[in-house]
Amino acid sequence: MNSKNVMSRLLVLSSVGLGGYLTGSYIERRKLAPMSGYVNTGKTKELFCSKPALPIFGTVSAATPVPAVSPTSAPVNVSRVGQIMKYGFPGMDNIRSFDDYVLSYDRRTRVAHWVFEHLTPDTVKHNDGVDRAKCDFKPDESVHPFFRSLNTDYKGSGFDRGHLAAAGNHRIQQKHCDQTFFLSNMAPQVGVGFNRDKWNHLERYVRKLTKQYPNVYCCTGPLYLPHREGDGKLYVKYQVIGTNNVAVPTHFFKVLVMETTDGRLEMESYVLPNQKIDDGTPLTMFQVPPETIERAAGLLFFDNVARNKLSKINGKKP
Amino acid sequence: MNSKNVMSRLLVLSSVGLGGYLTGSYIERRKLAPMSGYVNTGKTKELFCSKPALPIFGTVSAATPVPAVSPTSAPVNVSRVGQIMKYGFPGMDNIRSFDDYVLSYDRRTRVAHWVFEHLTPDTVKHNDGVDRAKCDFKPDESVHPFFRSLNTDYKGSGFDRGHLAAAGNHRIQQKHCDQTFFLSNMAPQVGVGFNRDKWNHLERYVRKLTKQYPNVYCCTGPLYLPHREGDGKLYVKYQVIGTNNVAVPTHFFKVLVMETTDGRLEMESYVLPNQKIDDGTPLTMFQVPPETIERAAGLLFFDNVARNKLSKINGKKP
Repeated sequence: MNSKNVMSRLLVLSSVGLGGYLTGSYIERRKLAPMSGYVNTGKTKELFCSKPALPIFGTVSAATPVPAVSPTSAPVNVSRVGQIMKYGFPGMDNIRSFDDYVLSYDRRTRVAHWVFEHLTPDTVKHNDGVDRAKCDFKPDESVHPFFRSLNTDYKGSGFDRGHLAAAGNHRIQQKHCDQTFFLSNMAPQVGVGFNRDKWNHLERYVRKLTKQYPNVYCCTGPLYLPHREGDGKLYVKYQVIGTNNVAVPTHFFKVLVMETTDGRLEMESYVLPNQKIDDGTPLTMFQVPPETIERAAGLLFFDNVARNKLSKINGKKP
Repeated sequence: MNSKNVMSRLLVLSSVGLGGYLTGSYIERRKLAPMSGYVNTGKTKELFCSKPALPIFGTVSAATPVPAVSPTSAPVNVSRVGQIMKYGFPGMDNIRSFDDYVLSYDRRTRVAHWVFEHLTPDTVKHNDGVDRAKCDFKPDESVHPFFRSLNTDYKGSGFDRGHLAAAGNHRIQQKHCDQTFFLSNMAPQVGVGFNRDKWNHLERYVRKLTKQYPNVYCCTGPLYLPHREGDGKLYVKYQVIGTNNVAVPTHFFKVLVMETTDGRLEMESYVLPNQKIDDGTPLTMFQVPPETIERAAGLLFFDNVARNKLSKINGKKP
């Protein structure tokens, strides 16, 4: 769908007063028709949402952008997105929804702002039909080429293509696992001692939570944290790799909400440095208050839930 | 409007099938009701934009958030936003519209992604009723407190509170000038030799363009550019100031589109380092291809206009 089409579609819809045409439509260079979305209802003009919504709903496959609305198009995977994002969106920037996880892309760093997953015993259980060995790391063509990371950016960098939404969390269908291999879901991670070790321990810990909790919500993302230098001032410093200058985050976070069988909610939040971490360090050492991560990341986690309604945060009553 | 109200409003609107309730509504913690925005039209479910739109339309005053739709509310300042953003939005993240400029806020850096202005001979001409001396730098209360920069962040930092949308571009009403003093429109800038000198020259140059061109569109923002260090690797490094860790951009950009009296479009784009710049350096020394800025900033400028339709880019035929 090119921008002209978007515009004319908006204008047409404006004139007939329909507001509901955006199901699953996907537009990389999202357009606005600032003057077209108003319906004069007599006393005042009302915006009926002329603008293409962020592609939150529906399956956005990078290879096959969801076409604009057509009465014959297949229903989008609405309910799964609703399930995954039940407790609120951490932010609203460049959101893409895949079949089993949702992602917000940071076009400046070429690394996601966050990814969001909903884990249940079913999504994480081993399924003979699903094999990560069948998956290839692939560029996310839904991202504009100016902002898209490529395999060549990682090659020779010394960093792993580290999953944000872990492949092992998406085992119901091969397609779900495949979609975790888009490079939009990767960040440059230290391999030995981090991606392949402590970070992996955390991922396995999160999956194991589904044995105790029927629903686990997991938000994962990068951080670029400041440090104090010799001049007494604070600086943010991070490497960028490849011709596309993919940022190497200084840290990664995970913020979890678990539903208990009796309907209570518990939260845990972790920050790990993107570096070799001693294998013996317990994961609880990396727990930090969720608010600390929110301030650093510019995000608000699970904000449909008041913090004081949680029965536990990092193991303690809030 | 608290989140419960948003939710129930969404649900009500969902059930009656209206999509146009969001005129000028402003919600800092934007909420989604992922399951509520669908109208079952028989063959497929359609999203009618259940989510609170970004507060793009209408005047978002930081001190007085525009209330949710009410038939008695005053019409929003739709046409001005449409004028300012005529050639497209550079990005869609946390957009706020003021009476005479539009801003996208970066909650992580506490500095705008971009601000957008539309300059005409009228908006820039001296008006005895409008005086920047009457303006105070003030926190933007429309920004969540976790992400809001404060005057105390700048105090003692050695950096100026540098306007992105220049005060001198908004002289029709005192209110327009006042609104350029929200701290969401500021970035830490080197004072002597930059904010007060070369950057100011560029601002004056942009205003002077209105003598030649009836309409000038100006997008301004920060950059955090990488540099190569002794180890041969590229790093992004920038200082952060104050208790809110306000980022000090390494560079600033301006991308301009000018409409000629005979309807042609010309573009100019500049990147200046946030440092003391020799007064004698001509502004043309800072011209860079717009694409370079787009890649670095994660933005797409004036993307309603094909680049090859411009009659000039930085003084040359594209």
